[in-house]
Amino acid sequence: MTLPRARRMDLVQPNAVGELLRMGADPAITSFAGGYPDATLFPLEQLHAVYDTAVREQGQSAMQYTVSDGSPKLRAQIAARMARHGVTCTADDVLMLQGSQQGLDLVAKLMIDPGDVVITESPTFVGVLIAFNPMQPRYAGVRLGPGGMDMDHLEEVLKKNPGAKLLYTIPDFQNPTGATMELAARKRLIALANKHNLVVVEDTAYREVRFAGEAPPMIKSLDTEGRVILLGSFSKILAPGLRLGWAIAAPELIQQLGLLKLAADTQCSTVNMAAASLFLERFDLDDHIGVLRQAYRRKKDLMLDTMRQHFPQEVRFTDPDGGLFTWATLPSSFNTEDFMRRRALSEAKVAYVPGASFFPDKLEHNHMRLNYSGQPDAKIVAGMTALGKLLKDELARKG
Amino acid sequence: MTLPRARRMDLVQPNAVGELLRMGADPAITSFAGGYPDATLFPLEQLHAVYDTAVREQGQSAMQYTVSDGSPKLRAQIAARMARHGVTCTADDVLMLQGSQQGLDLVAKLMIDPGDVVITESPTFVGVLIAFNPMQPRYAGVRLGPGGMDMDHLEEVLKKNPGAKLLYTIPDFQNPTGATMELAARKRLIALANKHNLVVVEDTAYREVRFAGEAPPMIKSLDTEGRVILLGSFSKILAPGLRLGWAIAAPELIQQLGLLKLAADTQCSTVNMAAASLFLERFDLDDHIGVLRQAYRRKKDLMLDTMRQHFPQEVRFTDPDGGLFTWATLPSSFNTEDFMRRRALSEAKVAYVPGASFFPDKLEHNHMRLNYSGQPDAKIVAGMTALGKLLKDELARKG
Repeated sequence: MTLPRARRMDLVQPNAVGELLRMGADPAITSFAGGYPDATLFPLEQLHAVYDTAVREQGQSAMQYTVSDGSPKLRAQIAARMARHGVTCTADDVLMLQGSQQGLDLVAKLMIDPGDVVITESPTFVGVLIAFNPMQPRYAGVRLGPGGMDMDHLEEVLKKNPGAKLLYTIPDFQNPTGATMELAARKRLIALANKHNLVVVEDTAYREVRFAGEAPPMIKSLDTEGRVILLGSFSKILAPGLRLGWAIAAPELIQQLGLLKLAADTQCSTVNMAAASLFLERFDLDDHIGVLRQAYRRKKDLMLDTMRQHFPQEVRFTDPDGGLFTWATLPSSFNTEDFMRRRALSEAKVAYVPGASFFPDKLEHNHMRLNYSGQPDAKIVAGMTALGKLLKDELARKG
Repeated sequence: MTLPRARRMDLVQPNAVGELLRMGADPAITSFAGGYPDATLFPLEQLHAVYDTAVREQGQSAMQYTVSDGSPKLRAQIAARMARHGVTCTADDVLMLQGSQQGLDLVAKLMIDPGDVVITESPTFVGVLIAFNPMQPRYAGVRLGPGGMDMDHLEEVLKKNPGAKLLYTIPDFQNPTGATMELAARKRLIALANKHNLVVVEDTAYREVRFAGEAPPMIKSLDTEGRVILLGSFSKILAPGLRLGWAIAAPELIQQLGLLKLAADTQCSTVNMAAASLFLERFDLDDHIGVLRQAYRRKKDLMLDTMRQHFPQEVRFTDPDGGLFTWATLPSSFNTEDFMRRRALSEAKVAYVPGASFFPDKLEHNHMRLNYSGQPDAKIVAGMTALGKLLKDELARKG
C-alpha cells in the first residue's frame, strides 16, 4: 500500500544536515549549532510576575480566543517601540506572529508562485529557505561583503532576473555571517526596490543585540512606497519560549498577511501576548537588552579569542558587532559536513552547522556557523580549543 | 505605484462575512457567531499553579527553544490519552500544533497541488476552507445527514472524482451542524478510503464535549493502513489561549508534517507546552471535561428551549449531543446574510454566522450557525427571544 504522494517529496525529505544536528543533541556533544540565547539570562523573576498577573487576574481573557491579528495593546506597544528605529506606525500596522519565522511562511503564501525568483543574500538564513520551499520558488543569491549585501551584484542579479518580485534580507548581524548592511547600501537597496518594483522582507531578529557602534536606520524607515515588510521578534531580546514575533507593513499587505495568519493557525497564544504586554508595561526591556549586549559581547570575545589561539591560520572567521554567530571559512577544498560526520562529533565532541545549508544552491562546502550565545564559558573554551586542534590535524593530513 | 500582485488576490480579500462579524464585535451586540468556550469555566486556579511552576521552577527550559515536534513529555501524555479512544500510539506519532487549525495548513502544504480535488462534508468548517485555499484545491462536497456524512453520496462523489486524494471530516459534533458519524458510516468511510487510496483528516476538536450517549470509535482506530491523520486540540477541553493542538499519524506522514511545522513557525510555545504537561500530570482533565459537559448541555438546552418557544415554526434546527453549535435552517428562499445585515444586528442586536460561508460552493443561503457555549444564560435567552421574534416578523412580511 502506498499513500497518495506528497506534492513534492523533496520539500519534506529529512536532509543530511538534520541528521547531523540530531547527532549533536547527544549530551556528550557540545553544540554550537543552534541559535539559542543564554537561558541563564532570561528575566525569570519578571516573567514570573507577569504570568502570575496574566493567569490569576486576567485569566478569563488571557485563556480565551482573541482577535486574529493579536492583542491590540501589545501591538500598540510594539508600534511605539518602532519609533526609536525611525519607523512610524500604529497598532493597525502590526500583525503578531508565531515567531518571525511565521512571517516567512505567510509571505511565501502571499507572494510566491512556483518558479518565481526570490532574491536573498548568499549565504542566507536556513529558515527562509525551508519556509519558502513549499511554494517552489527559484532563488537568486547576492554576494555578501563585510558591509552586507553587495549592491553592485544585486544590480546584476536584477538585470538577469527582471521578473523578480521579492527580496529577503537580514540587514543587521546577518545569519549566518554577522555582516551588517551599511547606510549607503540600505539607500541603494530601497532605490533598486522602487525601480524594479520589489517587495522587501527586512528581518530584524538580531538588530537589538548590538555590542558596538551605532545601528544604521532600518530599511523600513527609508521606505517611502510601502514595499518593506518588517519582521521582528521577542525571541532574542526576551525569550524564545513565548513564540512571539511581528510583521509591520503597509495597510494592504498587513491585511492580506492577517487573513493568511487566521487561516494558518487562528492566532498567537493569548496568554503569552498578555504576559509580553505586561512585561513591556511594568519593566524596562531596554535594561534587559543592555544586560544581554554585555554578556554576548563577552561570550563572543571569549570564543573568538580562543579561536585565534587554537584555530589554524588558514581559517578565517567574522568578528561581528552583534548577533549570535561567527562564520568560519576554511580552504575551498575543505568539506565541513564531511569533517563533522567523520571527526568533529566523535573526536572534538562538538557540533556546528555546516555552511552548505545556508546557500540556496548548496554549492559551498567550506564554511561553518558557530554560535557563541548558547553555551557556558567553559564549554566555549574547551569546544573551540578541541575543534581548533582537530582542524589543525585535519589540515596537516591534507596538506 | 502598484506593488507586485499577490498570487491570487481572491485568497486574501476580506469577505463580506468577515465584515459582518466585525460588526458583531460591537459591545451592544450579543454574538452567537464565534466558537468561544465559556471563559467562566476555565480552571484558572489550576492553570495558575502550573504556570507558576513552569516559569518559576522550569523557566530556563520553559522559556527556551525546544524540539520542533513539541515537548516529548506532553506528546507522551497525549499518546497515553489516545488509548481510551482505541488509538494506539507513542510520543513519536504525535506532532504538537499551534491549535489543530495549523494541522489543516500543514496538510494542505503537504498534499494539495492546484486543482486537486478535496472532499469535505457540505457544509463544513470554514477554517478548513481558508487553510486549504492558498494551495488552490477544488472542493467536492458530500451531503450530511443526522448520522453524519452520507456514504452513498460519498461513493458517487468518488466516482465523479477518481483523482481525489484527500478527505476532511469532523465525525463528532460536526462544525457547523452538530451531526455525529455513526459507526457503520465510519467503517464504510475507511473501506472507501482504502479502495480509493485517500488520506483522511479526522478533526476531533469537539469529540470530548459530549452530553449524551456513547462515542463511536475514532475513525483513526479503524485505520489499518496508516492513512488517517487525526487532529486534536486543548482549545475546547482546557483553554484556547494556550494555542495547543496535535496531529497523530503514521511515521512517514508525521515526519513530513513535522518538517513543514519546523518551516512554518519553528515550534509551539515551550512555556505553554510545559504548563499543559504539568496540568495533565497534577490534575484530572477528565474531571474538568465532566464539568464542561454538564454546563454546555444545560446551555444547549436553554438555547434550544428558547428557540422552540420563540422561533417561527418554519425554522428547523439541530439538537446535537455535544459540541458548541446548533445549525438552523430557514425556508429555502431566506437569505441569512442579508437578514443579518439588514435587521438582526440592528434590531435584535445579535450576530450569528450566516450559513453560506460553510459551503465550499457558497450556494446555500438559508442557514445560520448559533453558538451556545460562549454567552451567559441571560444573554442566550434574551438573544434567542429577540432573534425569534424578528424572524417571525420577517417571515410574516415575506409570506
